[in-house]
Amino acid sequence: MGIHIIAEFRGVDPQKISKVEDLREVLDRVVSKSGLHVVSSSFHQFEPHGVSAIYLLSESHFSVHTWPEYGYMALDIFTCGDDGPALKAFELLLEEFKPKIFKRRIIRRDIFGQSASQNIK
Amino acid sequence: MGIHIIAEFRGVDPQKISKVEDLREVLDRVVSKSGLHVVSSSFHQFEPHGVSAIYLLSESHFSVHTWPEYGYMALDIFTCGDDGPALKAFELLLEEFKPKIFKRRIIRRDIFGQSASQNIK
Repeated sequence: MGIHIIAEFRGVDPQKISKVEDLREVLDRVVSKSGLHVVSSSFHQFEPHGVSAIYLLSESHFSVHTWPEYGYMALDIFTCGDDGPALKAFELLLEEFKPKIFKRRIIRRDIFGQSASQNIK
Repeated sequence: MGIHIIAEFRGVDPQKISKVEDLREVLDRVVSKSGLHVVSSSFHQFEPHGVSAIYLLSESHFSVHTWPEYGYMALDIFTCGDDGPALKAFELLLEEFKPKIFKRRIIRRDIFGQSASQNIK
């Protein structure tokens, strides 16, 4: 029913990810271009730098947490329905932040997943 | 640097997860009891039922998406620092929602993860 892209970006320009105002502009653009639908968004500025950003989407959510001192971002894109917008958002994030290294995991969020049976109470 | 608990609950009482006002009360209690620190929270009511809830935490974030028609919830608890509060929150969520079946995955969100080298550009 849903795709969850879990990603880590390293080697990102710290200037791009230090302040809410800079990061927000980029993330708003990515969300808009990828065809995701925003219900609301919240941002938090850490001092002296670092940002948390969360978009509540009609498709589920999109979050970014940054540690500029390490050039590091942790990203989550969780959407229900068509996978297309989430995959598009991920490609746009790569283009915008140009990490030197990244790790991407894709998880299926499904109601009827096989491995659920491992935890039947 | 961080723990991310990704969970699916099935067989949850639909009454508990249909409306923002009911769900919010439980989630606020779980967050408070587990020692997590809330920066802000956002909720969305789907019609005729179903809720998305996102807590921006000083530790990262906590999100819940519900599909009462399937007795299903998708949960994410992503925290930096000590694992204790995230694990405590998960236990409290099990106690509150009493899923008949659940699936839990734990992912390490780390800046210097080994598998990152697979994607060096």
